[in-house]
Amino acid sequence: MGHISIGNYLLTRLEQLGVKSMFGVPGDFNLGFLDLVEDFPTIDWVGNCNELNAAYAADGYARVNQQSLGVVLTTFGVGELSAINGVAGAFSEMVPVLHIVGAPSTGQQKAKAMLHHTLGDGRYLAYTRASEQFTVAQAALGNTDAAALEIDRVLLECITKARPVYLTLPADLVHSEIPADRLSIPLTRNYPLNDPSVEEYVLDLIVKQVQAADADVIVLVDACTIRHDVRKELNEFIRRTGFPVYAAPMGKTAVDENYPRFGGIYIGSISHPEVKEKVESAKMILSVGALKSDFNTGNFSYNIPPTKTVELHSDHTHVQYAQFPGIGMKRLFPKLTDRLEPFKQAALKLDVPPFSAVPPDDPTPIINHAWLWPTVGSFFRPKDVIVTETGTANFGILDIPLPEKSIILNQILWGSIGWSVGSTLGAALAARESGLGRTILFVGDGSLQLTVQELSVMIRKGLKPIVFVLNNSGYTIEKYIHGKHRHYNNIADWTWTSLLTTLNDGGRVPTKSYKVSTKQEFSQLLQDEKFARADCMQLVEIIMPALDAPRALEVQAEMSGKSNVFSAAAAAGVAQ
Amino acid sequence: MGHISIGNYLLTRLEQLGVKSMFGVPGDFNLGFLDLVEDFPTIDWVGNCNELNAAYAADGYARVNQQSLGVVLTTFGVGELSAINGVAGAFSEMVPVLHIVGAPSTGQQKAKAMLHHTLGDGRYLAYTRASEQFTVAQAALGNTDAAALEIDRVLLECITKARPVYLTLPADLVHSEIPADRLSIPLTRNYPLNDPSVEEYVLDLIVKQVQAADADVIVLVDACTIRHDVRKELNEFIRRTGFPVYAAPMGKTAVDENYPRFGGIYIGSISHPEVKEKVESAKMILSVGALKSDFNTGNFSYNIPPTKTVELHSDHTHVQYAQFPGIGMKRLFPKLTDRLEPFKQAALKLDVPPFSAVPPDDPTPIINHAWLWPTVGSFFRPKDVIVTETGTANFGILDIPLPEKSIILNQILWGSIGWSVGSTLGAALAARESGLGRTILFVGDGSLQLTVQELSVMIRKGLKPIVFVLNNSGYTIEKYIHGKHRHYNNIADWTWTSLLTTLNDGGRVPTKSYKVSTKQEFSQLLQDEKFARADCMQLVEIIMPALDAPRALEVQAEMSGKSNVFSAAAAAGVAQ
Ligand SMILES: Cc1ncc(C[n+]2csc(CCOP(=O)(O)OP(=O)(O)O)c2C)c(N)n1
Ligand SMILES: Cc1ncc(C[n+]2csc(CCOP(=O)(O)OP(=O)(O)O)c2C)c(N)n1
Ligand SMILES: [Mg+2]
Ligand SMILES: [Mg+2]
Repeated sequence: MGHISIGNYLLTRLEQLGVKSMFGVPGDFNLGFLDLVEDFPTIDWVGNCNELNAAYAADGYARVNQQSLGVVLTTFGVGELSAINGVAGAFSEMVPVLHIVGAPSTGQQKAKAMLHHTLGDGRYLAYTRASEQFTVAQAALGNTDAAALEIDRVLLECITKARPVYLTLPADLVHSEIPADRLSIPLTRNYPLNDPSVEEYVLDLIVKQVQAADADVIVLVDACTIRHDVRKELNEFIRRTGFPVYAAPMGKTAVDENYPRFGGIYIGSISHPEVKEKVESAKMILSVGALKSDFNTGNFSYNIPPTKTVELHSDHTHVQYAQFPGIGMKRLFPKLTDRLEPFKQAALKLDVPPFSAVPPDDPTPIINHAWLWPTVGSFFRPKDVIVTETGTANFGILDIPLPEKSIILNQILWGSIGWSVGSTLGAALAARESGLGRTILFVGDGSLQLTVQELSVMIRKGLKPIVFVLNNSGYTIEKYIHGKHRHYNNIADWTWTSLLTTLNDGGRVPTKSYKVSTKQEFSQLLQDEKFARADCMQLVEIIMPALDAPRALEVQAEMSGKSNVFSAAAAAGVAQ
Repeated sequence: MGHISIGNYLLTRLEQLGVKSMFGVPGDFNLGFLDLVEDFPTIDWVGNCNELNAAYAADGYARVNQQSLGVVLTTFGVGELSAINGVAGAFSEMVPVLHIVGAPSTGQQKAKAMLHHTLGDGRYLAYTRASEQFTVAQAALGNTDAAALEIDRVLLECITKARPVYLTLPADLVHSEIPADRLSIPLTRNYPLNDPSVEEYVLDLIVKQVQAADADVIVLVDACTIRHDVRKELNEFIRRTGFPVYAAPMGKTAVDENYPRFGGIYIGSISHPEVKEKVESAKMILSVGALKSDFNTGNFSYNIPPTKTVELHSDHTHVQYAQFPGIGMKRLFPKLTDRLEPFKQAALKLDVPPFSAVPPDDPTPIINHAWLWPTVGSFFRPKDVIVTETGTANFGILDIPLPEKSIILNQILWGSIGWSVGSTLGAALAARESGLGRTILFVGDGSLQLTVQELSVMIRKGLKPIVFVLNNSGYTIEKYIHGKHRHYNNIADWTWTSLLTTLNDGGRVPTKSYKVSTKQEFSQLLQDEKFARADCMQLVEIIMPALDAPRALEVQAEMSGKSNVFSAAAAAGVAQ
């Protein structure tokens, strides 16, 4: 095999891994690499408005392009630090993102030259130090010898651990030639084998527990089912065993929500009473890929003792109190399916409440959450990609079943507002690349103000998402948590319907904007065939009351308000 | 003295230090503190659209409110990391900014609870680790005992070193009461004394060097003159000694540019030939507060040997090759003035070229840089606050003298685009608070897209800056550096003149937008009395050619292009 430049080596690897779009912002230290990107036939450069949005886009892209990864390219210092919150979010939420930083040339780095974008004190490693906190692997390319190996190492870590990695590409090395031979060895996600005797032991234990529970078992699926790629194994399992299935908020859509044995969303004490009853009264809970964060568990209000629980994780297993490090679910699942299939008859006798949502019969014209979510529920179609922002939207969507093969994106753990906008850009691109359906965003007026410019890139790239802006005059979720009548929870009132034309690329691309203030206006819009076809980018401003929230949020907010000890009285230990 | 809550202790300290506006974004971990801020009579809460913009605003505020500091308040994780590039910029550029982070309560931190905004792995210190790289002091309040001391410590570091500091405020401690007695001891910026015998020795050396140079001395002022608060001492010095003065780009306006002994801007080989000749042929250069970064020195092209140089810094002095750590200019200057005053007669004989700029006689209608900058030069007035963004604007402004008492803000070292927009918000607030003149921003179309939403906060706060948008269809500075005809250097073409109405707060506040495409249109606008009065917020879109740049940028870009080694040929060592 011949030789290849380091830049093209990297691009070829990304191509092999299914990357078709790359996000970021140019800067003088990455312009040389950008030449290669622009000339690379199968990867499209998406110039973002800013780096944080670019990182969010890479995150959204990776969530939809599920066997691949997201890539964000920034420039040294100013660019990479602007992106760091987006990268940290990908770490927290377990999304594989490669952060490439175009850096000064190796000579300038060695000389510690006082270049622009430096801290002025020669600390060239300061940015890497910061990024180490939020990435699972880092490589600073320093010479040609190790370049290919280093690139492969961080990419493998990225796809295997489903977490972000960081790669520094000095300007002078981009065009340096290295042998191309490693490229013939594909990089594949690595699922470590389980120790066979421990695995056997664990399987026996689980079977015994199922027997002891008289097969009164429910399956509770969560985030890592999706992030650690066991959706297929899980679905095979539930279909062959017949156990009832529920999902934590972050596990939503891991199982088709129209599957008859799917019973809805479990969020501890915030759950619908029937779901809560079913889950908590089962004799055994098989928890799959749990991620027990506050907002994913109804503020830690699971009422399930460990003695009733088996927990499967990507790299360990819990059976009651016993822990089994190294026993990962990807390999365990098929065997567990074989072992538990015999319980199917018993399992099918277990009742599952239907998961459905019907708009309440409410004659008032005002659009409120109780009515909104069931209503948009019937607007969704199979294969839609649905993005919801932290705020009322993230809670509202939980109450409604989504169509099969739809994908839902949210940030229930990290919760960085504004993320949904960049993420929608990445998601819409990935959806277009892989022939999925419409991309539909629900974002609060407050959140959209953080990252609004990225709508412009959607227009420019010819994407056609539907953006629902929940205009409730401010930070409603915050108001529910604390400061209901405080000024700091109010925001400026933008003219949302003129945004798309303002941010349009010279008006070249058709877009549409709507404002709906009543249930009737909104229903009519949803029923409009043309609107639903989404053949241009559309923004819908939904006017909602400042103090209205989905049921789940009301309960959650009250609980987190308490744990934050906001007031002097609470600090003094006085009951509020 | 009585007791006071930790939150109010902090606010009282900030009030004492002259802080009248605080920037940031609410988040559930800082809402308790925000109650105190909102109720605090002398500090106004500026809710920003996002945290990066808030940090930029705090930076701009501190640059104008020069004896004070800027404050940015964010929430744990998502908020603070969004702001980190702005804080790092304040570090690099030496601007005193306090970054307050509202964090989970001490109990939750100890329990390592898996809260939203955490990385999901219990690493509660990860964000502090990152911020340590970009701040000169950090304090994580953990209990009431040390709180006052810790707050005072970071504040003193902030104002003394003129660099950012980081303070974590757990939700539960905000309302905890502590003794208020420390508040009676004011915090004041601390200028360490110089060792008297070393100082005397240094003064003798400098006097000898001036004698040896036959008083053929020029003074070259730079960034740290402004940042380390020696402007007064410097001005006393130059007036009493009469030496000619020149400024590096980052030293611009440290000396009134209409002062007859001021000769203009020195940027190594990029300087105007006459300035270059004068500076480099002087027998001695007294350099004040030098910061020799690439863009501040014409890519390191000073042609001044150390044997001709005396360098005064905030905490050390160089005389030729000799270094004197601990001898700082704040204390040295008055003595140096006394010692060098006797040379005044000789000094006044030295010629100083006039620093002026007249628009060229160019009959073409197109607005180009050569014409633009001298033209806006005569639009400026004393006490105007002028902000320029990285890009063509930063270079263009160098060529024109600014009126007395005007303030110029830019980021020549850090160079994070988008900064100027947030910074303008902070600058305009500080200018209003202290009765300065108009705030005038020059920002490129590319840069404005990064942080555009902050225009909305300016409107909402009733500020009246004039925003000149240089619309040259993309990243012109980058095009000059590399990739003149590459797509990645192009951007979406927004409808700039509809921005202010879109981002207006329900249209409550009057704003005006203009678009000028010819020299004549632009001149007319500048001559319009009403426009110049700036009694509402105004945006002016200036249409300019994509490939036109100020002279200084053309030269600089060529030089940085070379040092970046962008092409395969350059990498292989082939001359380009
Ligand atoms: C980057 C970031 N900054 C601040 C916060 C704190 N925060 C969480 S939700 C929220 C308000 C969201 O308001 P909006 O988008 O309007 O949602 P809604 O009104 O529907 O609740 C804020 C400020 C955050 N989560 N992330
Ligand atoms: C945060 C950040 N991202 C990227 C860059 C790299 N960069 C420097 S200047 C520039 C283009 C600026 O374009 P514009 O504001 O339009 O200025 P002009 O066209 O007048 O040069 C870019 C992308 C940067 N300096 N900072
Ligand atoms: Mg809202
Ligand atoms: Mg431009």
